[in-house]
Amino acid sequence: MKFNVFTEMEYIARSPGTIILNIHALRTPHQTVISEIFDIEPYIKVEELISTQNENRLMRFEIEEAGTIKVTYKAVIDNFCEIKDFTDIEEIPIAKMESSVLPYLYPSRYCQSDKLYRLANNLFGHIENPFEKVITLTDWIHKNVQYLSGSTNSQTSAFDTVTEQAGVCRDFAHLGIALCRALTIPARYFTGYAYHLKPADFHACFEAYIGTDWVLFDATRLVPLNGLIKIASGRDAADTAIANIFGNVIFTSMIVSCELEESGFEPFYYEQPQLRGLSYL
Amino acid sequence: MKFNVFTEMEYIARSPGTIILNIHALRTPHQTVISEIFDIEPYIKVEELISTQNENRLMRFEIEEAGTIKVTYKAVIDNFCEIKDFTDIEEIPIAKMESSVLPYLYPSRYCQSDKLYRLANNLFGHIENPFEKVITLTDWIHKNVQYLSGSTNSQTSAFDTVTEQAGVCRDFAHLGIALCRALTIPARYFTGYAYHLKPADFHACFEAYIGTDWVLFDATRLVPLNGLIKIASGRDAADTAIANIFGNVIFTSMIVSCELEESGFEPFYYEQPQLRGLSYL
Amino acid sequence: MKFNVFTEMEYIARSPGTIILNIHALRTPHQTVISEIFDIEPYIKVEELISTQNENRLMRFEIEEAGTIKVTYKAVIDNFCEIKDFTDIEEIPIAKMESSVLPYLYPSRYCQSDKLYRLANNLFGHIENPFEKVITLTDWIHKNVQYLSGSTNSQTSAFDTVTEQAGVCRDFAHLGIALCRALTIPARYFTGYAYHLKPADFHACFEAYIGTDWVLFDATRLVPLNGLIKIASGRDAADTAIANIFGNVIFTSMIVSCELEESGFEPFYYEQPQLRGLSYL
Amino acid sequence: MKFNVFTEMEYIARSPGTIILNIHALRTPHQTVISEIFDIEPYIKVEELISTQNENRLMRFEIEEAGTIKVTYKAVIDNFCEIKDFTDIEEIPIAKMESSVLPYLYPSRYCQSDKLYRLANNLFGHIENPFEKVITLTDWIHKNVQYLSGSTNSQTSAFDTVTEQAGVCRDFAHLGIALCRALTIPARYFTGYAYHLKPADFHACFEAYIGTDWVLFDATRLVPLNGLIKIASGRDAADTAIANIFGNVIFTSMIVSCELEESGFEPFYYEQPQLRGLSYL
Repeated sequence: MKFNVFTEMEYIARSPGTIILNIHALRTPHQTVISEIFDIEPYIKVEELISTQNENRLMRFEIEEAGTIKVTYKAVIDNFCEIKDFTDIEEIPIAKMESSVLPYLYPSRYCQSDKLYRLANNLFGHIENPFEKVITLTDWIHKNVQYLSGSTNSQTSAFDTVTEQAGVCRDFAHLGIALCRALTIPARYFTGYAYHLKPADFHACFEAYIGTDWVLFDATRLVPLNGLIKIASGRDAADTAIANIFGNVIFTSMIVSCELEESGFEPFYYEQPQLRGLSYL
Repeated sequence: MKFNVFTEMEYIARSPGTIILNIHALRTPHQTVISEIFDIEPYIKVEELISTQNENRLMRFEIEEAGTIKVTYKAVIDNFCEIKDFTDIEEIPIAKMESSVLPYLYPSRYCQSDKLYRLANNLFGHIENPFEKVITLTDWIHKNVQYLSGSTNSQTSAFDTVTEQAGVCRDFAHLGIALCRALTIPARYFTGYAYHLKPADFHACFEAYIGTDWVLFDATRLVPLNGLIKIASGRDAADTAIANIFGNVIFTSMIVSCELEESGFEPFYYEQPQLRGLSYL
Repeated sequence: MKFNVFTEMEYIARSPGTIILNIHALRTPHQTVISEIFDIEPYIKVEELISTQNENRLMRFEIEEAGTIKVTYKAVIDNFCEIKDFTDIEEIPIAKMESSVLPYLYPSRYCQSDKLYRLANNLFGHIENPFEKVITLTDWIHKNVQYLSGSTNSQTSAFDTVTEQAGVCRDFAHLGIALCRALTIPARYFTGYAYHLKPADFHACFEAYIGTDWVLFDATRLVPLNGLIKIASGRDAADTAIANIFGNVIFTSMIVSCELEESGFEPFYYEQPQLRGLSYL
Repeated sequence: MKFNVFTEMEYIARSPGTIILNIHALRTPHQTVISEIFDIEPYIKVEELISTQNENRLMRFEIEEAGTIKVTYKAVIDNFCEIKDFTDIEEIPIAKMESSVLPYLYPSRYCQSDKLYRLANNLFGHIENPFEKVITLTDWIHKNVQYLSGSTNSQTSAFDTVTEQAGVCRDFAHLGIALCRALTIPARYFTGYAYHLKPADFHACFEAYIGTDWVLFDATRLVPLNGLIKIASGRDAADTAIANIFGNVIFTSMIVSCELEESGFEPFYYEQPQLRGLSYL
């Protein structure tokens, strides 16, 4: 399905500084970048960083003098996300797990899975099918955590959210990841453009490694799972910030949109007892 | 300088399980593995994992039935760690920093640099030379944090240690890393065998990226900086555990040693106002 | 029912110091001190502090020179704890609540009820009878939190325990208190001697204010509720420490016991759906 | 010196509820209430609670139906705060300290002095005069913590602020209290009306027990110390909230003012090396 994605961000630099942006759509077997334009006004030369750890497309540029800059990204993306039945999937033992996914088992800044071990196992340890385990914990988050704009900040972590039970998409994702890792299921943070997200914004959810697939889960249930355009994945929000700003540069405003380019979109959400999962990679 | 390193670890498996060990000496331009033997009794087949994120040498093996196992690693390592003068070094702007080191700028599980930004800049922000900055913050940790066995646990983080001011080598390292990152200096965790460490154990310290080098710092001052054999580096202890154990397998005992194989060792420690730094890679 | 309680504690003073002990049995309408002896060897003059906030019996004494001291407390106590049926009790509105209990509604050092508001209300908010609410949350703690000696320390709080789900009697009590307060039920910490506690030690549990009674609850279920001799109550462990030590004085050993003085004891535990509660004051 | 204090607060009750307000000026030997008017529109009967723990003047009232209410408090207060020289004061040993101040030595919800013990003693332990100790730690807070509206929330504690180094008057006070208690100096939270505070608001600072006086300290340095009208004291903000609201009642707006009623006011601030302290009780 083809989508038009768009973002425009403005910054005021009070002094020289550097910005690393992570807003470009990924190129994956499930996602094709048909066309894209990236533009900074006034013109600044941009370097695309090659990440050694993942395929995220980071753009770095240096603001050499104080002033206002406007960044624009506009792309047409074809999303072929795949839906697969996980009814017969079994948990892969650690001994057989691909080594590239092991780092996603360990605790990270916002996902202190080491502290959630007993809780996760008490709540979900009895479920055998790993897809069912993750969809059940996702439903548990959806039911228990209140989506509340402004209730959390950039330091809020899964350890806070599991008790305070309020947050935004970022907090829902961190809690999902932490619970998965506490259950010895590799999990990672996912950022993207999201069709039908209201108010329009970047979106965050998470991927769990089930069988041999990174499967998408979204405890917020705010958008259809097949209406996302993937930007990045990483251990948590610390790895996948939309923007890392160095120097006295202030973010002032943003527009984000994600619209269908063609008709015939059928929104897809998980519905238990079906164990059909969707993957972006 | 040649060192004999040795470790023997015993585990009791109460059920089948998997262990991933990270005890092999790294092979780097500054460290040569002359000979090594790795052995498990009773025999278990071991897989060396290829890490996508770094060069750490992870060994994975599956314990198929309950019982006691003993792991032995014995190696002769030649360490050519390099000492360099950083008197004239300048801070590298983010805009020019190698992309592979950028992940070491972000907060991680045990190094919440985002929370230490004001403190780090109040204390050390005025120092211009980046080596002097890091050696000064290392001295500050040494002066303010008490080395106290048993005062912390596996969940203790830099955010705790900066106030509670007690800990072990792991906590000293995490605090050093968090302060560096808060000052926009990439920093990572370092584990190794350590000559003259009493009581003998694995050691942890940290590396800061200065100029174009990963330079070693050790706020504990327990061992000479040139008496280390590097095992691994990573964002923090979550990335570089000596052992990750999955299943009901209990660690019961350990012997570690690191002895000189040849004579003529001259212990090297940092001493301000000299700005000479030592690097293992 | 009459009980013999006894404790002997040894301290080594490395310098002069002061100790405030809180080990004397309370005198309440439900508890009579038949006889008691308090002794320090070598002899030190002791001052009984009059608390402005509660009736706890604090003993303060000054150790004027280095050396070893031994404190002994031995008493015969008659406990008339009362059992009452709360089937028809209604929640007392804040507007009618006695002002002396209001301070037990607010968060304290180890009972951060402000952070547990949503969780407590999601789990227990639907239960109408306040006694049933507290007995249900006590059962929930008993079911979800593992009693594990050494798993926590003096800084562990209800906010930790609600997620980490392991602890000792002190942690069970703090979590019970925090959940009650989050549900607008006044709750306080209770310390005492406990019949049949194994291994013998001081015990901690909590009281919730229901109707017009302070009712005892114990999420550990380690001892019969009618086998306690009350020492103190307060907001949490910070208010009711067995000993507060000032100066370089080290606690070295302790013996505690609580034995029946007469026969005919019938252990009493709560058993839902019965709503019979027990009170010590 | 006479002051006119005034506050007007509006609430919207969406359902019945109860409010406990703590906005009345205290009556103390150093503060006389010359006249005061307290009014709720529409009329609601108010009960003045007698606190068992301190003299704070709590007003409780029940809102019986949904609607808007407006609370007004207007008073003329004469403040005779006393200035005393503490140059020759000595630290009072615990063994001689009045028992009513001992509870202010223990950690509380927002003042985790138990975690700041080493830090406080490393920084300030060497200072002998207790007034100088507290004025030095107050200066340290003023120098290191940035006053930044909106940087913290109702859950922020001294343990956060000591590292994050940003906050509002409440956070400055909590940190001062926690540091004092870690140094074995009793300390408590102080709320009041403040002359010259901009923007006008209630103010918070702290009192430390020195010699036999509760002496006022304010690490924000936002107002003259002799321009305060004391409302309440307690262990921390959990004890002395301006308003405790129960039920679905929303605070919508507030006006606060504190003006001189007579001329001749000479603002008083602490200035080292003078050791002159000011007390409100």
